[in-house]
Amino acid sequence: MPDDQLQPAPASVAGGRLRKAPENFLDPAGVRAVFAEGKRGRRDFIRGAFAAALAGGAAARAGAQPEAPVGEGDPAILNLPAHSTGLGQAVATDGYGRPSKYEGNVQRRPSPGLTQTSQSSVSFAPLQSLFGIVTPSGLHFERHHQGWWDVDPAQHRLMVNGMVKTPRVFTMDELMRLPSVSRFHFIECGANTGMEWGNVAVPTCQYSHGMLSCSEFTGVPLITLLEMAGADLKGGKFVLAEGADGSSMTRTIPMELVTNGQVLVAYGQNGEMLRPENGYPLRLVVPGVQGVSWVKYLRRVELGDAPWGAKDEAIHYIDLLPDGTHCQYSSIQECKSVITTPSGGQVLLDKGFYNISGLAWSGRGKVKRVDVSTDGGRNWRTARLETPVLDKCLTRFNLDWVWDGKPTIVQSRAMDETGYVQPSIRQLRDVRGNRSIYHNNAIQSWLVQENGEVKNVQVS
Amino acid sequence: MPDDQLQPAPASVAGGRLRKAPENFLDPAGVRAVFAEGKRGRRDFIRGAFAAALAGGAAARAGAQPEAPVGEGDPAILNLPAHSTGLGQAVATDGYGRPSKYEGNVQRRPSPGLTQTSQSSVSFAPLQSLFGIVTPSGLHFERHHQGWWDVDPAQHRLMVNGMVKTPRVFTMDELMRLPSVSRFHFIECGANTGMEWGNVAVPTCQYSHGMLSCSEFTGVPLITLLEMAGADLKGGKFVLAEGADGSSMTRTIPMELVTNGQVLVAYGQNGEMLRPENGYPLRLVVPGVQGVSWVKYLRRVELGDAPWGAKDEAIHYIDLLPDGTHCQYSSIQECKSVITTPSGGQVLLDKGFYNISGLAWSGRGKVKRVDVSTDGGRNWRTARLETPVLDKCLTRFNLDWVWDGKPTIVQSRAMDETGYVQPSIRQLRDVRGNRSIYHNNAIQSWLVQENGEVKNVQVS
Repeated sequence: MPDDQLQPAPASVAGGRLRKAPENFLDPAGVRAVFAEGKRGRRDFIRGAFAAALAGGAAARAGAQPEAPVGEGDPAILNLPAHSTGLGQAVATDGYGRPSKYEGNVQRRPSPGLTQTSQSSVSFAPLQSLFGIVTPSGLHFERHHQGWWDVDPAQHRLMVNGMVKTPRVFTMDELMRLPSVSRFHFIECGANTGMEWGNVAVPTCQYSHGMLSCSEFTGVPLITLLEMAGADLKGGKFVLAEGADGSSMTRTIPMELVTNGQVLVAYGQNGEMLRPENGYPLRLVVPGVQGVSWVKYLRRVELGDAPWGAKDEAIHYIDLLPDGTHCQYSSIQECKSVITTPSGGQVLLDKGFYNISGLAWSGRGKVKRVDVSTDGGRNWRTARLETPVLDKCLTRFNLDWVWDGKPTIVQSRAMDETGYVQPSIRQLRDVRGNRSIYHNNAIQSWLVQENGEVKNVQVS
Repeated sequence: MPDDQLQPAPASVAGGRLRKAPENFLDPAGVRAVFAEGKRGRRDFIRGAFAAALAGGAAARAGAQPEAPVGEGDPAILNLPAHSTGLGQAVATDGYGRPSKYEGNVQRRPSPGLTQTSQSSVSFAPLQSLFGIVTPSGLHFERHHQGWWDVDPAQHRLMVNGMVKTPRVFTMDELMRLPSVSRFHFIECGANTGMEWGNVAVPTCQYSHGMLSCSEFTGVPLITLLEMAGADLKGGKFVLAEGADGSSMTRTIPMELVTNGQVLVAYGQNGEMLRPENGYPLRLVVPGVQGVSWVKYLRRVELGDAPWGAKDEAIHYIDLLPDGTHCQYSSIQECKSVITTPSGGQVLLDKGFYNISGLAWSGRGKVKRVDVSTDGGRNWRTARLETPVLDKCLTRFNLDWVWDGKPTIVQSRAMDETGYVQPSIRQLRDVRGNRSIYHNNAIQSWLVQENGEVKNVQVS
C-alpha cells in the first residue's frame, strides 16, 4: 500500500473538541507487567497480582477487612484481595443496576459544535466498546430535533386518521392489549458516516459509524391499527407519521412497507419500555429505513394517496447529487459494514493474534457474507457470521488475524441477500459526488500503524 | 372449573413483606375517562386530553413555557402540552441513559426474609413488565452467595490448570484478543419457582418465576482455552469452575458440555461488559444448565477425571426425593413456560380482547410449541412463537384472547424439540414429592377473577 494512498486522520474535528476514544483494558505498560507475572508461574502470579491489587487500593475502595488474611501459614495466599475474603454488597443494592465503575468511559458522546444547539444534535454509540448485536439502551445513539422529553404515558394518545372509515384514538392501555410482535432490527441515521463524504476522517468508529444501534422492539403492527380504523387499503398509498414533540416531525412511509406487517408501533425496546430519548412511550419502527422515519413520541398516523413532501422530507434528509439536483425519499439504508476492533483510536499492544470483529447490516434484508482485508484491499477472507443472522438487523462478524507488526490497512466489505455489495468510497463518489451528507455506506479503512495506533484513513 | 380446585394465593409470603406488583398504565378510572374522550371525536379529544395533561401538572414538571400557546385562533389546539411546543432536554444529557421516570416501579426486587443476610440472597426480575426475550441488564435477576463486587479487570486473572500440559494464566486483555462468539441464552436459578413446591403460591410471576433472565453473551469458548493449555481431552472428563468472590463458588461441569463449544468464558452481556452483580469481568456461561454453574468472577478452571463433589454441589443444589435420598448433579433446566400477561398481581380493566403473552424455554434445546388454556386445562390452543426461536434461549409466545368477564384459569404448556412436555404440578409431585426446593418446571396456573384481579393458584 503506497504511502500516498493514505490520508491520515486529522488530530481532531468539530472544533477540535473530539477526543481520542477511551478504551477498556488497553494500558500497554500494565499488560506487559502482567504478561511477565504470568510467566513466573502460578504462586508468583498470585502474590504479584494480589499485592498489586492491594497497592492499587482495591481493598480500601471495597471497604472490606484486609486485617484478617486467611491461610496465614501459606505465603502464596497472603494478601488475598478483599473480594475473595470479605462480604460484598447486598442483593438489589440497586433495583435498576448500572455498569461497573471501571466502564465509566463507555458512553454515548455528542460532538460539540456539530449543531448550533444541543437540543438539535446527536450523540454517538460507542461501537468500539460493544459486543454482539444488541445495543444497551443506555448507550443507544440519539438524534433529537428539538430535545427529548419524558412524556407521560397516561396522557399520551395515538390518532389514526385520513383515508379510514372510522378515525381512532388509542390510549397506551388500548395499544398494549392488542396482538404484539417482538423483532430485532437495526436503526441507522441517514447521516451516519456523513463526515466521510467530505474527506473528514473522524478519529473513531464511535464518531464515524455510531449513529447506529440495534434493539429488540416490541409493538403492534401498524397494519393492525389501520385495519381497526377501516383503512382504504386500495386507495391508501402512503401514511404520514407525526411526532408529539416540539419538532412535530412528520415523515411519509410507503404503504408497501406497512402492508407486509414490518412497520411497528412500538412501545418496547430490549425488553423494557422505550427510553425517553428514543421516543417513550411510542415510536414507529420502520425496518431498513433511515432513523428519521422512525418517528418518536408518535401521536398520529394519517393514511393518504400521495407523499406529503413535509418539511422534514423536502428540506432535510435529501441527497444532493453532483449535477445540483437532489434525490428525495431515498430512505433505505443500503448494505454496509464496519470493523469495530481494531478501529480508529484503539491501540494494538503488540504483534500477534487478534480477533477482528465488526458489524454488518442491510436495509434490504439479511447479510449474506462479509469479507475482510488486512492488506488494504489486495486480498480478502470471508469472516464468520455470528448467528442468528436476522432480517434488517445487525450481524456480528469475527475473523482470526495475526498481526506481523507492520503498518497495514484493515477493511470489511458486506454483501446482502439481494446480491448487493458494499461499494468503495470511489465507487460511491462516482455516482453521488462529494456534496452529499446522507447515505454513505462505503467500505471503511483503518490504518494500523507500526506503534499499534489505529487511524481512520480514506483509501481513494 | 369447580371452586374447590382453586387454591387462592395468600395475601403475602415471606413475612408479609411482599407487596402487590406495581403495574404500568393500569389505572381503570383513567382509562375509562380516555375511552370516553376518544368517543367524543378528534377535536374534543385533543382539548380534553391536553387540558387533563396541564391539570396533572405535566407542563409544570417539564419546566417549559405554557405562556405562549401556538395557534391562538384555534381553540382546539390551545393548551398544547409543553413537550409539543417547547425545547426539550439536550442530547447526551446522560452519557449512559436511564428509563423513564414513569417506569420507576419496574425493578428487580428482593424477598426480604428469604435468607438470613442480604448478601446471600436473591432479587427477582420483573417478568410481568418485560417484553420480547432480552432482559435489560439493569433488571437481570441476582443470586449472590457472599454479596457482589466490582472487581478491577486490570487485576483479574483466569487460571487454567489440572490435566493440561501447560497451566495458563490469562489477563482480560489476553482473553479479549481471542476468537469470540456471541450467543443468546437464558439463565435460570435451579431454585426458581421453588416456593411452589410447598403450596406457597407467591403473588406475582416476578416472585414465582423471576430468577430467570436472558441475554446475548459474548466470550471465548472454554474449549479454546483448554486447547491452548494442552488439555488432556481423552482423560479429562470434568472441569471445576471457581469464582474469585468470598463464597469461592466451585462447580463441576461435564466435559461433554464443553467440547461442543457451548460453554463460554464470557465478558460481554447484552452488548456491553458484564454487570458487577452478574460476575464482572468474567463469568462462565453454561447454556441449559442451572445458574449456579455459571460461576461469576471466574478465576480458575481445572480439568480433572471425576466430579469434585464440592461444597456447592454436595450440600446445596441437590434434589431431595420422597424416599429421603437426594439427587445430585441434576443440573439441566427442563422445558418450562409461564404466562407473564395476565399474571398474578395484574388487573384486567374490563372484559374484551387481550394479548396473552409469556415465555418458554428448555435447557435441552429449542422450544417447539407452546399451548395455552384459558379454561383451566380443558381446551388448549397453540400460541404464536416470536422469532428467532433459539437454542437454550427464552422464546416469547403470544395468543389472542377475548375475556368474557367470568372467572377462569389461564395456563401455558411448553414442548421442546426433544419431545419433552412441561408437566403439571401433580405429575411432578408424583415423582419428586413435596420436599424439594429445586427444578420445579410445572405448568403455572393464574386465576382471573370476576373483578379482573389475577391470582396465583395451584390446580392439583
